[in-house]
Amino acid sequence: MTPHPDVLAGARLLTAADIGPSVVRALERIAGRPAGRPYDTEPDGPFVYVGASLPEALRTPELVWFHSVNAGTDALLAAGRWPGNALLTRTVGRMGERIAQYVAAWILAECQSVTEHAAQHARAEWRRLPAEFVGGQTVLVHGTGHIGTAVAGLLRRFSLRTVGVRRTPGGTAPGFDRVVEAGSDEEAAELTAARWVVSTLPLTAGTERFFGAARFSAMDGASFVNTGRGGTVDMAALESALRTGAVRRAVLDVLPDEPAGPEEAVWHLPRTVITSHSAGITADEDVVTDFEACWEAVVRGRTPTLAVDTARGY
Amino acid sequence: MTPHPDVLAGARLLTAADIGPSVVRALERIAGRPAGRPYDTEPDGPFVYVGASLPEALRTPELVWFHSVNAGTDALLAAGRWPGNALLTRTVGRMGERIAQYVAAWILAECQSVTEHAAQHARAEWRRLPAEFVGGQTVLVHGTGHIGTAVAGLLRRFSLRTVGVRRTPGGTAPGFDRVVEAGSDEEAAELTAARWVVSTLPLTAGTERFFGAARFSAMDGASFVNTGRGGTVDMAALESALRTGAVRRAVLDVLPDEPAGPEEAVWHLPRTVITSHSAGITADEDVVTDFEACWEAVVRGRTPTLAVDTARGY
Repeated sequence: MTPHPDVLAGARLLTAADIGPSVVRALERIAGRPAGRPYDTEPDGPFVYVGASLPEALRTPELVWFHSVNAGTDALLAAGRWPGNALLTRTVGRMGERIAQYVAAWILAECQSVTEHAAQHARAEWRRLPAEFVGGQTVLVHGTGHIGTAVAGLLRRFSLRTVGVRRTPGGTAPGFDRVVEAGSDEEAAELTAARWVVSTLPLTAGTERFFGAARFSAMDGASFVNTGRGGTVDMAALESALRTGAVRRAVLDVLPDEPAGPEEAVWHLPRTVITSHSAGITADEDVVTDFEACWEAVVRGRTPTLAVDTARGY
Repeated sequence: MTPHPDVLAGARLLTAADIGPSVVRALERIAGRPAGRPYDTEPDGPFVYVGASLPEALRTPELVWFHSVNAGTDALLAAGRWPGNALLTRTVGRMGERIAQYVAAWILAECQSVTEHAAQHARAEWRRLPAEFVGGQTVLVHGTGHIGTAVAGLLRRFSLRTVGVRRTPGGTAPGFDRVVEAGSDEEAAELTAARWVVSTLPLTAGTERFFGAARFSAMDGASFVNTGRGGTVDMAALESALRTGAVRRAVLDVLPDEPAGPEEAVWHLPRTVITSHSAGITADEDVVTDFEACWEAVVRGRTPTLAVDTARGY
């Protein structure tokens, strides 16, 4: 829960050891107090912590607020019981725009044979390759939250038809041409019609292996792009679908087990590129901007819009 | 010049041997007459010819109209004197949108390290690569005609700042954030500021080696994308600029001498990809659509908007 402004006023600011000095200085400016490191400042009173993960020693009732420098908080929440009353906020920054540019890049790269041209160039081979025209194709975007909406918003600008798939009924999802419910007949029909299927889903109990045999076999030559979490995909089902052609190509930014070692079989999936969890890497400026927005909310007694529901997991 | 409707009414329709049967059938439907091939139909009266190039035997006063299946007509005009009164029209189709998608694909591919990720994947190497955020960067687009405008229109949708460079003063160029004159101080300053320089210039006497030492050395790490004509680039100047870093990377769809043979030095330019004149390949449907639009204009006694000024060259 959001700490009372009076509690915040008396709290120490601690930052993880891997936060760079320029970011620390910016956080100190925002908080109006010096920052300590947890190893040189015993948290013997209320404290705010900024980092990527929460060490066990800091999972105490004295933690009033943890600001994550990442957008995904599933690993953080899975690492141990969340300390009672602590507020959890996250860094989204331009995450939506960054992931949207990643998705647009890989869709256009496939249409324009970017990697094939690079390979031909390396062989000094002149050969014309016709391009695929992207306008009018259908893209399914799983997840209609901040990131899914940003992805759809950018892809619509290429005249792609954007269909959002949501797991929670109700609410609105502006920016999509159509929204369907996960598991519905409408989703199945759109999976078949889609040229592209893009996942932005977080990993929760409800999304584990969400992309399994049923969804992959409903596809009819769609290319699959996963920018969400690797655990949402049943990798054996994906491999089968790549072998039958139900899935044309896969671009996987995330895997169930990361990082993948050089000997792992996942590198040998057909027509697949793995991009090492590079989509939407948060920049230092994102951490500072989002921490500042959260700080402004808390000092006014409001719940930051970047607060995470620790029970729901996102 | 545009033939009189009465002349068109009595003209034969001839199509080049490499035009596919479905296109020929569509052209016959539009013209309301059967199509012949030039080798089985002696052009002994007025005729309309559809093809990529104009054989010497058809460069006669009987040619009333040549419709090019391509957008570029420089090679056609350079191949011999244009027969007196013949109308020349060209196929643009979705050329602008196609080339815009090509340019967007290569810009985003560079920002997202698409070819580097593919290479890492081939080595089974997991390594995070940060992406470059494209919003707010400046792109110079040389040529503010149909294609340049389409390129700028798409790139603006990524929040790129688009600066058009035109060689002919006056007129408007909607779709650009700014338009400057070629050779002006403003162009030089924008070349220095630009992250991307995209050429859509046709090849004419006025654009030969347009991109030479002066323009390339004004750049300060811009990536250069040429979707126009290869002869507009002084390749030695480009190579120097790539070696000094004035040009960061080059994506060349076109070369002064095409196709490039496997032994040619051009394949060894640093940080360059050559894409074998693949941007904006016209599709069959483009030829049919544009021929029909031209036909409708001519039968009404109007000059088609796709007519080429054979003196100016585009």
